[in-house]
Amino acid sequence: MPLIDLNKIPTQAPKDLDKDEARKLTKQRAERIADLHQKLVAEGKHSVLIVLQGMDASGKDGAMRNVFGECAPFGLRAVGWKKPTDLEFAHDFLWRIHKEAPAKGEMVIFNRSHYEDVLVQRVHGWIDEERVDRRFESINAFEKLLAYDNNTLILKFYLHLSKDEQEQQLLERVNESDKFYKHNDGDWEEREHWDKYRAAYNEVINRSEIPWHIVGVDQRWYRDYQMTEIIVNAMEGLNMEWPALETERTW
Amino acid sequence: MPLIDLNKIPTQAPKDLDKDEARKLTKQRAERIADLHQKLVAEGKHSVLIVLQGMDASGKDGAMRNVFGECAPFGLRAVGWKKPTDLEFAHDFLWRIHKEAPAKGEMVIFNRSHYEDVLVQRVHGWIDEERVDRRFESINAFEKLLAYDNNTLILKFYLHLSKDEQEQQLLERVNESDKFYKHNDGDWEEREHWDKYRAAYNEVINRSEIPWHIVGVDQRWYRDYQMTEIIVNAMEGLNMEWPALETERTW
Repeated sequence: MPLIDLNKIPTQAPKDLDKDEARKLTKQRAERIADLHQKLVAEGKHSVLIVLQGMDASGKDGAMRNVFGECAPFGLRAVGWKKPTDLEFAHDFLWRIHKEAPAKGEMVIFNRSHYEDVLVQRVHGWIDEERVDRRFESINAFEKLLAYDNNTLILKFYLHLSKDEQEQQLLERVNESDKFYKHNDGDWEEREHWDKYRAAYNEVINRSEIPWHIVGVDQRWYRDYQMTEIIVNAMEGLNMEWPALETERTW
Repeated sequence: MPLIDLNKIPTQAPKDLDKDEARKLTKQRAERIADLHQKLVAEGKHSVLIVLQGMDASGKDGAMRNVFGECAPFGLRAVGWKKPTDLEFAHDFLWRIHKEAPAKGEMVIFNRSHYEDVLVQRVHGWIDEERVDRRFESINAFEKLLAYDNNTLILKFYLHLSKDEQEQQLLERVNESDKFYKHNDGDWEEREHWDKYRAAYNEVINRSEIPWHIVGVDQRWYRDYQMTEIIVNAMEGLNMEWPALETERTW
């Protein structure tokens, strides 16, 4: 398989994609995702894990709102991964992750994930390269365990943002009062490591056995357009069925 | 590595091992384990996972009492694995196991373990052989994750019992009132599958990357003698140190 180079993949929508048409399709698909999710819950045979990764301000929160906003809350869970607690640090890096894996009949969205342990920790040199290698092995084994032993459909999205668009997005967080709560001076410091993160993400994408979906996100509507398409297709592929009626009574 | 064949490994103590001498040594070593456990807790850098597997009545409960009975309760946990709950069944087979993995500074004893999922489920034909293969892969990856990413010393003991001695032990459970609570008609049914279990255990031992310790248990004092020796040696090998005094005051 040829290597993927993020630097050669556009972050923007193709010029010939009509925005209004895309939005209309996105809305239809978001409703279709809600239907498929309901079927997932009813059937109880599969589980779905959505992984969202991307640089700061790449639109992970908005993706959760727009792509899964039509789904009912039961059987849906979003988990945001932040700095590990002391108890989490006292365990292997997948311990806290595995606990939150979806049950059959459940869809779980990870806002950030176990990949942070081969991204932020690596960019800052907190772990050595031998440990990085072992972690990639562990991650691949872990994802295969979920996929094979619990019928988990794993959909991993890299939200692909340009450096210029990140600046615009981060500036909005200091200029718009309903985004102040998202501002963090640390994001500007992390931005200094842009190239290192890009290289680390490149490796994440190329070393994963379960493939990533790379989604250009400079336009948020284009992000939602791609994500909904990928998710609908993948969930349709599960060929789920509404369970038969179980009753001994004649109606 | 030549394959191990349990049928060729004795379940009994060698004739020239003096029982009283062995018991004396066992007691000293059990106290040494308690010291080492205290150091483990104080240092907080390593974790220890003890896995006990064996046929019914092979003496797992007694091993816990006699080998770890001198240890303080803090930083020590014993987990007994029974039939999975509905929630556990709705996840991959390692989900409930991983949650109970030891933190740094902790020793956890598993009475039965994730290996049941390639033993009882296999003997009864509840899972197909492809799934057995995948599970062995997952188990090896999981144990390496604990070992490498959380400094976990994993000590796995197969309590090696003869079929005749099992009969004696099971009979005691219907004849002695303080053992009635251990009696279960199902144990006699499982005994019918003795050869299948033996074959399945043989594979478990040969397919594990982190090696097993095979301990003859027809005499319970011999079981404790071997286990305490193995554990003391392995924990000494961690080269743990009492933490230095941290104080700014001059004493």
